[in-house]
Amino acid sequence: MSLGDIGKRILIGRKLRSAQLGETLLPKRIALPVFASDALSSVAYAPDEIFLTLAVAGLTAVAISWKVGIAVAVIMLVVVMSYRQNVHAYPSGGGDYEVANTNLGPTAGLTVASALLVDYVLTVAVSISSAAQYAASAIPALEGDQVWVASIAVIFLMTMNLRGVRESGTAFAIPTYLFMTTIITMIVVGFGRYLFGDLPQAESAQFEFAASETMAGAGALAMGFLVLRAFSSGCAALTGVEAISNGVPAFRKPKSRNAATTLALLGGIAVTMLMGVITLANLMHLRYAEHPESQLIGPDGQPLGTDYHQDPVIGQLAKGIFDHFSPGFYLVAATTGVILVLAANTAFNGFPVLGSILARDGYLPRQLHTRGDRLAFSNGIVILAGFAIVLIVSFDAEVTRLIQLYIVGVFVSFTISQLGMLRHWTRLLATERDGARRSQMQRSRVINAIGLTFTGVVLVIVLLTKFTHGAYIAIIAMGVLFLMMKGIRKHYETVGQEMAVDEDESLTLPSRVHAIVLVSKLHKPTLRALAFAKAARPYMLEAVTVDVDRDEAEALQLEWDRRNIPVPLKRLASPYREITRPILQYVRDIRRQSPRDVVMVYIPEYVVGHWWEHILHNQSALRLKGRLLFTPGVMVTSVPYQLVSSQVAEERQERQERVAGQVRRGSRNPPSGGK
Amino acid sequence: MSLGDIGKRILIGRKLRSAQLGETLLPKRIALPVFASDALSSVAYAPDEIFLTLAVAGLTAVAISWKVGIAVAVIMLVVVMSYRQNVHAYPSGGGDYEVANTNLGPTAGLTVASALLVDYVLTVAVSISSAAQYAASAIPALEGDQVWVASIAVIFLMTMNLRGVRESGTAFAIPTYLFMTTIITMIVVGFGRYLFGDLPQAESAQFEFAASETMAGAGALAMGFLVLRAFSSGCAALTGVEAISNGVPAFRKPKSRNAATTLALLGGIAVTMLMGVITLANLMHLRYAEHPESQLIGPDGQPLGTDYHQDPVIGQLAKGIFDHFSPGFYLVAATTGVILVLAANTAFNGFPVLGSILARDGYLPRQLHTRGDRLAFSNGIVILAGFAIVLIVSFDAEVTRLIQLYIVGVFVSFTISQLGMLRHWTRLLATERDGARRSQMQRSRVINAIGLTFTGVVLVIVLLTKFTHGAYIAIIAMGVLFLMMKGIRKHYETVGQEMAVDEDESLTLPSRVHAIVLVSKLHKPTLRALAFAKAARPYMLEAVTVDVDRDEAEALQLEWDRRNIPVPLKRLASPYREITRPILQYVRDIRRQSPRDVVMVYIPEYVVGHWWEHILHNQSALRLKGRLLFTPGVMVTSVPYQLVSSQVAEERQERQERVAGQVRRGSRNPPSGGK
Repeated sequence: MSLGDIGKRILIGRKLRSAQLGETLLPKRIALPVFASDALSSVAYAPDEIFLTLAVAGLTAVAISWKVGIAVAVIMLVVVMSYRQNVHAYPSGGGDYEVANTNLGPTAGLTVASALLVDYVLTVAVSISSAAQYAASAIPALEGDQVWVASIAVIFLMTMNLRGVRESGTAFAIPTYLFMTTIITMIVVGFGRYLFGDLPQAESAQFEFAASETMAGAGALAMGFLVLRAFSSGCAALTGVEAISNGVPAFRKPKSRNAATTLALLGGIAVTMLMGVITLANLMHLRYAEHPESQLIGPDGQPLGTDYHQDPVIGQLAKGIFDHFSPGFYLVAATTGVILVLAANTAFNGFPVLGSILARDGYLPRQLHTRGDRLAFSNGIVILAGFAIVLIVSFDAEVTRLIQLYIVGVFVSFTISQLGMLRHWTRLLATERDGARRSQMQRSRVINAIGLTFTGVVLVIVLLTKFTHGAYIAIIAMGVLFLMMKGIRKHYETVGQEMAVDEDESLTLPSRVHAIVLVSKLHKPTLRALAFAKAARPYMLEAVTVDVDRDEAEALQLEWDRRNIPVPLKRLASPYREITRPILQYVRDIRRQSPRDVVMVYIPEYVVGHWWEHILHNQSALRLKGRLLFTPGVMVTSVPYQLVSSQVAEERQERQERVAGQVRRGSRNPPSGGK
Repeated sequence: MSLGDIGKRILIGRKLRSAQLGETLLPKRIALPVFASDALSSVAYAPDEIFLTLAVAGLTAVAISWKVGIAVAVIMLVVVMSYRQNVHAYPSGGGDYEVANTNLGPTAGLTVASALLVDYVLTVAVSISSAAQYAASAIPALEGDQVWVASIAVIFLMTMNLRGVRESGTAFAIPTYLFMTTIITMIVVGFGRYLFGDLPQAESAQFEFAASETMAGAGALAMGFLVLRAFSSGCAALTGVEAISNGVPAFRKPKSRNAATTLALLGGIAVTMLMGVITLANLMHLRYAEHPESQLIGPDGQPLGTDYHQDPVIGQLAKGIFDHFSPGFYLVAATTGVILVLAANTAFNGFPVLGSILARDGYLPRQLHTRGDRLAFSNGIVILAGFAIVLIVSFDAEVTRLIQLYIVGVFVSFTISQLGMLRHWTRLLATERDGARRSQMQRSRVINAIGLTFTGVVLVIVLLTKFTHGAYIAIIAMGVLFLMMKGIRKHYETVGQEMAVDEDESLTLPSRVHAIVLVSKLHKPTLRALAFAKAARPYMLEAVTVDVDRDEAEALQLEWDRRNIPVPLKRLASPYREITRPILQYVRDIRRQSPRDVVMVYIPEYVVGHWWEHILHNQSALRLKGRLLFTPGVMVTSVPYQLVSSQVAEERQERQERVAGQVRRGSRNPPSGGK
């Protein structure tokens, strides 16, 4: 055991057999922070979005922000209640994809899957962009470099996840609890100071909203539309609620009940935090606008101009409430930043897992499914990070613009999942005879129906108010994913049919093996290939070389004869100095003369240890092999000759695989549910 | 023959056998333009560099520009005379690399090679940047977008060369002759008008140079240094002179004499054009500065500011000389732009050829050498274009900044080559007894000694005056290339020794073949692999599957038994759900039990037709194969199963290779000289 291995064992922990998976199950107090960071973190940007949308309509509209907040809270509670039914119905942690797939068929399932994949990317982009905003608010030097900060953070997360994050339960618990404590303390202190008449105004309370001529004339309809848009943006607070329903198998027994309780807790905390923040912002007369430089007017009656740096809502609240205790502000900014990064990290866990399930079902390349294989997850992680960075760069890391794309996917998946649950209960009710359980099912069905109605309405509102603002991009992305996955599935099916064995089919043996050994020079790899080929005792064996350079070929022939090599050497003419075509032609001629024979082509290959050595060797062998495989009735045998450098590489590889195995084995969330 | 093939034959011409290469030899009238574009095109930027460097010292310095021009012309004539000796001594078209390698040893050869490789990249960057400048001067809308124009031009050249340019002789002849005619006509008309007292002033003659305080105080030493820098920059006119000495084999017989004549012609024309342009610029009182906005003062006594667009020297001359005939200006700009692009194209020919020679000598990956193989040249072309674009973007397509890096490489290779020639003649003289030939050799040796002195002095001047201005970048690049190529050569030598066969070594046959067929599912590819493996009649044959999923493995076993497959199925346990490791372990166990046996692993593979299908299949097979090759005593046999889609791909591949072969076969300049 090397020093590195010991270090890794300390960092990563003992390796686990399949049977040991039970040991990693999470108690509720750890499960809550693990699954809640995504949902809770949205309090860092959802109120901001409500305020800045309402700000367009000026002061009167902002005053109704608490009503919008209540509407969001109601939706949140309905969704939490609905998902408690999912958790009970699918203790295997099916998630929305499984629910839709099972109850509504593959098209619905695939729609949900596309929505979720897009959503994971957006979770990363939105959370990290928001975190970069908080970082810039606490460290003014970062102002203007948010795109860089966010991109580097995504790359950091990617690297961490590629290395394999484990034992992340406890690692998640501390910052998440710290965030909850900090925000709730802030809210309590804020309300306390309000009761004692000591609550200060927000810094921005001194500003007024610039009168917007467009809104003044537009009237009630436009106003209503704006309020709906604010509500849509506020619904960002609901993202991440479904995480627990995917994670049921990771809970301690009784799994479903524990998961349901955790879900209720999560809903309660999220609503408390959201409403607390919105109410305090109103009490402190906070002003928040998308373009503060022109939308806000200073005490001197002039627009603020670009000098004004607008802190996020929570940041402004913290500055006011902790006005005599500045560490309070930094603690809020820091814990909010951390929780946003953790929220992004949940996507890094979820995306590869969903990818693995989709691969199992044949919608994505099959190698994404293989368990215990580091590459399977690595690909997913890199793809997720790549797309997230593209979004961050394209949208300048501006949360307000990214959020327009965000919640469509969430609500598509909510709505379809609820519809699936409705079907689920209806189907069960058709056979269930036990009265108590029937009434419980009927109750669940009613709850899911309410959930369906609410999420459906929200989805329509989101589509209406955000489509032209960017939601169309998310929808196009979903469509592309949907078609791609359908295409992949179709391809696998076609191939599967093509390869299926007929009922009465058995082995049809070719009559004889005609072996040829490809020779370019007479060195050890060639001798080994000749020896191995001879040991296999084929019906016919010959060495073949291509006469690219006459002198070299003559020299080879001479040495061949001098050494009395007991295999005849055949020289193929190549007037155009090609290597591949004469060999292909020769192999085809053999097949033509005796179609029932099989041709076995032996290729001597050097095995080297470093990637750059690969560039220096075997290139024409590789290309030739690629071409030979297209020819029917041919087998291609690589006879490796291990150079000294290959040993080092082999040992390194061994070590890596051992570690990778450990990481995956320990992964908290088994990719294919209970299977 | 398909329609596409007919089209290609029309475009590319009949394919040529090796023996037909002689038909493509060039007469002098075609060889001149083919090899001269690089050398002649420098008249488009070399005078500019002389003028703008001298401009720093004000009017008095500019007045001596013709002296600098004469110095450059002298160097040019000396270099041409020296290279005429090279041409006679190395009719195989050795080029500087061969000369240095043969006479001064591999280190000198590799130094020259590094210098030339760097130089090819700079030729592309400088020529195309200059062409972009002329384009912007003729089409003002392009002003400011030179980086884009230049990058797109490089990509265009790359694409053309990847497709294979042939019959380029005639294609080159027309624009090169047009350029020569245009420039010489302009010079003749200019001098004619001067004789008749009718020569107008240049547009910029109305400006004055701003007095530079730094220069005023610096005195004679600084002034001398400036003049030397101007001379260094002017020496850019010499780049490309060595092209003919590389191309001797492409000349009609008597090759050497024809090449020497062409070289003399080239030198004469280049010097005429350079001196003509410099003299006319002086007669027309042209003012040219690196930063015209601040260095030039208008008639109102104020600096010109950024509004002034400074045309290149030839452009300004043409505007003045053809002031009553505006098409003249556009013709000059257009032919200059075209010749600059052709100059860049010579690098696209030269770089892969030099790469191929270096690959033959083991300094670059061997696959760069293979003739008749499109990939060999493609890699070189893409690498060249990539580096050129990096330079263009890094230096904002500014010729003045790029030229600081440029001529170091040229003069390194000139100097070492002349030193090599000196050695060459000295060596020949040691054995030569014939009096007439001795005196001729001695004459040649004197000429090369003069060439060595002059080029050596220029190299020192260039290093002194340009090192800190950018030449150090070129030198670092050469150093990196040098070390890399040395490393590659060393690697090949180590591997060669490791693989060399001992004198008494012969085939040592392994005693028996133990064959295993890897099985994941029971489908047609598996059946074929089993049948082929059985046909090879190994000593022992078994099918092996890995028990990743217990249910699937059971099902496989059942079907196996039901179908009565006459090969035993072995199930390997995999508690950690891995595939590769259990198989590796099993193979090693077999080897441990009977070390004299060889293990043959059959892997069923699907052959698919599209790149995206590769992503969907065979991934774990590929990885497994990679690992197995590291294990001694193992052969890996791919048993392909051709899916329907593979046929389309095979046909497409066939067609492409046919065309690629034709292109390369027709290439004018055989990569390894006379070999």
